[in-house]
Amino acid sequence: MTKATRLRRAMAEKGLVHVMATHSPLSAILAEQAGFDGLWASGFELSALYGLPDMSLISMTQHLDMLRAVAGRTSLPIVADVDTGYGNAINVIHTVREYERSGSSAIVIEDKSFPKVTSLAVDGHHNLVRVEEFQGKIEAALATRSDPDFLVIARTEALIAGLGEDEALARAHAYEQAGADMILIHSKRKDPGEIESFSKAWNGAAPLVIVPNAYPELNAADIRVLGNIRMIIYGNYAIRAAATAMKETFLRVIADGGVQQVHRDLLPVEDVFHLQGMESVRSDERRYLR
Amino acid sequence: MTKATRLRRAMAEKGLVHVMATHSPLSAILAEQAGFDGLWASGFELSALYGLPDMSLISMTQHLDMLRAVAGRTSLPIVADVDTGYGNAINVIHTVREYERSGSSAIVIEDKSFPKVTSLAVDGHHNLVRVEEFQGKIEAALATRSDPDFLVIARTEALIAGLGEDEALARAHAYEQAGADMILIHSKRKDPGEIESFSKAWNGAAPLVIVPNAYPELNAADIRVLGNIRMIIYGNYAIRAAATAMKETFLRVIADGGVQQVHRDLLPVEDVFHLQGMESVRSDERRYLR
Amino acid sequence: MTKATRLRRAMAEKGLVHVMATHSPLSAILAEQAGFDGLWASGFELSALYGLPDMSLISMTQHLDMLRAVAGRTSLPIVADVDTGYGNAINVIHTVREYERSGSSAIVIEDKSFPKVTSLAVDGHHNLVRVEEFQGKIEAALATRSDPDFLVIARTEALIAGLGEDEALARAHAYEQAGADMILIHSKRKDPGEIESFSKAWNGAAPLVIVPNAYPELNAADIRVLGNIRMIIYGNYAIRAAATAMKETFLRVIADGGVQQVHRDLLPVEDVFHLQGMESVRSDERRYLR
Amino acid sequence: MTKATRLRRAMAEKGLVHVMATHSPLSAILAEQAGFDGLWASGFELSALYGLPDMSLISMTQHLDMLRAVAGRTSLPIVADVDTGYGNAINVIHTVREYERSGSSAIVIEDKSFPKVTSLAVDGHHNLVRVEEFQGKIEAALATRSDPDFLVIARTEALIAGLGEDEALARAHAYEQAGADMILIHSKRKDPGEIESFSKAWNGAAPLVIVPNAYPELNAADIRVLGNIRMIIYGNYAIRAAATAMKETFLRVIADGGVQQVHRDLLPVEDVFHLQGMESVRSDERRYLR
Repeated sequence: MTKATRLRRAMAEKGLVHVMATHSPLSAILAEQAGFDGLWASGFELSALYGLPDMSLISMTQHLDMLRAVAGRTSLPIVADVDTGYGNAINVIHTVREYERSGSSAIVIEDKSFPKVTSLAVDGHHNLVRVEEFQGKIEAALATRSDPDFLVIARTEALIAGLGEDEALARAHAYEQAGADMILIHSKRKDPGEIESFSKAWNGAAPLVIVPNAYPELNAADIRVLGNIRMIIYGNYAIRAAATAMKETFLRVIADGGVQQVHRDLLPVEDVFHLQGMESVRSDERRYLR
Repeated sequence: MTKATRLRRAMAEKGLVHVMATHSPLSAILAEQAGFDGLWASGFELSALYGLPDMSLISMTQHLDMLRAVAGRTSLPIVADVDTGYGNAINVIHTVREYERSGSSAIVIEDKSFPKVTSLAVDGHHNLVRVEEFQGKIEAALATRSDPDFLVIARTEALIAGLGEDEALARAHAYEQAGADMILIHSKRKDPGEIESFSKAWNGAAPLVIVPNAYPELNAADIRVLGNIRMIIYGNYAIRAAATAMKETFLRVIADGGVQQVHRDLLPVEDVFHLQGMESVRSDERRYLR
Repeated sequence: MTKATRLRRAMAEKGLVHVMATHSPLSAILAEQAGFDGLWASGFELSALYGLPDMSLISMTQHLDMLRAVAGRTSLPIVADVDTGYGNAINVIHTVREYERSGSSAIVIEDKSFPKVTSLAVDGHHNLVRVEEFQGKIEAALATRSDPDFLVIARTEALIAGLGEDEALARAHAYEQAGADMILIHSKRKDPGEIESFSKAWNGAAPLVIVPNAYPELNAADIRVLGNIRMIIYGNYAIRAAATAMKETFLRVIADGGVQQVHRDLLPVEDVFHLQGMESVRSDERRYLR
Repeated sequence: MTKATRLRRAMAEKGLVHVMATHSPLSAILAEQAGFDGLWASGFELSALYGLPDMSLISMTQHLDMLRAVAGRTSLPIVADVDTGYGNAINVIHTVREYERSGSSAIVIEDKSFPKVTSLAVDGHHNLVRVEEFQGKIEAALATRSDPDFLVIARTEALIAGLGEDEALARAHAYEQAGADMILIHSKRKDPGEIESFSKAWNGAAPLVIVPNAYPELNAADIRVLGNIRMIIYGNYAIRAAATAMKETFLRVIADGGVQQVHRDLLPVEDVFHLQGMESVRSDERRYLR
């Protein structure tokens, strides 16, 4: 059973899976230990790790390198954020090939045009690609995957682009028609109203995926009531947790003139050794070093 | 003025510099904002980020990739942990060339033999290389650097190998004689006694560097009293802070069935945008997008 | 004197510089030994080395990795092929930063829209970006370079897109106005007529660059007569030479059932050792291994 | 059927397989088209491509990156040159894991001690590791592979180290006893006498592998007579062919002042397009671009 098959089964059995953002094997190992169902190989988190804006500056191969390292150290299925697919349908074919053989079980591809611009840039820049163009990308992705359970998730930015629920629904239907396995509906509203409304209006067969970054108040209990959301992606919480703690720790070390205080509030180094798999090294040393 | 020159001046002017471990540009940016004098491109931290034991499994090019990314996003000098120099003196020559042009201002090279074994392995494995062999490595490093202010720091593991203070002092003298700019004296004792004793006994001209991982109680005030320590490297605090916070956050999200609670305790995403340099993107968009 | 300064001086002194495509340090070392003035870090050659179509499938970091390796092994200035700059002006800023610090002395940026499509695709796909948009990219590149001698070369695909000489000239003037140091005029006609005509009609101050892949008959003597072309880039000859020889050699080995014949027609392995710098290894071993 | 299984079957059916060195997907595609049975992911060739001496300067991840690219563009099984396994048995475990999941079907691991020194260095440097230590590495490799048909090939340098045939035979038996699937016997003698003698004296069950770099006269017909050699690796012929052709082409371009002559002797660019897979791009463009 592939990891992609396991992810599909988990959604079928649990009704809802929780997927945590990852930017490194370390964060992935911790997410697996905490009990998440999958990992989100997030472009935003990796950009933030590199101290770069999330504007397609991190290359596909940098993202693949990290994803591959994660795949080597966890057993969780990985949902890969591939933005717009790094170009047109030809690039999508290369993308699916490379992400699948690097160990991901799903990709999320979005209908924005490349290159990205910030939300503060003029509206005209926030264009989405034409529906037929995006359908071509979805079809290219489907034709390329070698594991039929590998998930192709279509993400529409229609609500964020200010095009309204009707456009979002029309696009979602068109993407499902092109073969998308799931629809990720994205919103930047601070309340979950937009998402709840879309979920109620959606009558397609493809289940929904959401990313509650802007509207964290929407929890699993609320989501189950909606009925057609099968995956929650926690899109930026790992890197925010890491940044918060490093900021505080660094300021304390400077204030204290040393680590004599902070060391008490941190995981002991032995716990980090454990996350690194030192026990198996010691056992392998006993077995194989002569 | 190169960053290496700035690092030498900071030691001369302040008497003691504080160098924080980094495993990513994000941690480096936060360390710079907190006020550290330099960054430690730590092999341990990068191994831990990759979820791998610190047994030379991370390659030199993986380390260089991260170091180069850090150098592109901070103005702090970078002290690079190059373990044993990836082989013999021939490999050290390649190492110095690559680390210097990747943006580091110093390397720390240690006198252990390659490959590393864990402390739990039999004592015989904990061998150090012969003194003359290590002197050859130091001389090769010195002859290779192009910036004369690039620091070559010799790290002796004599105390950790259980060879005693006399051997540690003899090696430190031999390494200084070969041209080492500074001596890193390492100890795994939980109290700073070994380090204090060595510092008092050391009468060479090369200043000392310490890494108070095992003995965090030794603070800057104590160190200044000793008089010949010019650099403290905080060797694993960044990754421990990150791991601690991610672990706690992940467990809370699972327990809460969502992010409705944890999001209040994390840096807001706008603060992460700031660390990523989004303000300059917005200003560049206004200037250059047409 | 930086390599960029040297490249500018070579053009001023010689009137015309010859730049050979490279896809590896080995090809670069051989080009330097043969007497070329510079190296073309070619996207086409690197794509071909990877066995991939030249459709933006090779990532910027893969290109940078190779360029950096080349910069570490030759003293020739490197002219980098950055296609469209990996996105919009924001991506160009990142591109210039990364290419400059990786060791290139110039970039060539083209006015095609991203993503590329093959020439066989329908004409509508062969669009160029708007003139003002491309001017924004040029200005962003100029504002980002740290070495004022770093060359920003604007490449127009107007002739290839079938837009005619008037459009090509208008674009070249607009790009010069935005600050481009040189104009690369590209043609896929099998005779040099288009290029000669453009060269005669060009009255801007920025010198021209050409890439005689399609029209190899145009040689240095002819080019000097034209008077305003300062750089010839031999865009695909290194990889074609390598592919030709490997194909022939492999077929012979299979036919012969061994290497008993072909080995006589190949560079002896000692010559390859020399290209790898083995002499300095041996001398360093004598000096530093103890 | 995995590629490793196919490689084992090819040896069983043909009696002898021909494996060509590769340093890139391009050379691999050409080798597959020529009819080779497998590819040798050669450390020497990759070092030469990078213009670096073959002294463990190329990192494991650089080697894996190239191997993975090759695996994505050919269907031939790949035999990976992993030198000494990048350290001790602990490193071998990591090595086997990474090489297997990167797409190789076999590794060759050698009994030299790390780091390598040139043959011209003093004899004392040319030490081999102890037999029991190398047996530990072989056992670690075997316990790590996930595909039972993945081949672990033990290479002994006993003849090259001047230790004589008896030592070479003793080591080969010890390595077979530890589980090695095949024995690679290496010689630098210019005539095949050493290899022929070893082959005749070898009475183990593990078949032999040879690398006729130094003794190219030994051809497939001679080898079949010996009876227990199942694999010939052509260790440096691809890069030598490429270097030979680039050198000649570059000198001619400089001499001719252009490419007006050489272009006639090179593969036409359309043939390179074909090697890059441009036909499928064009067909995918027609299908998916809208």
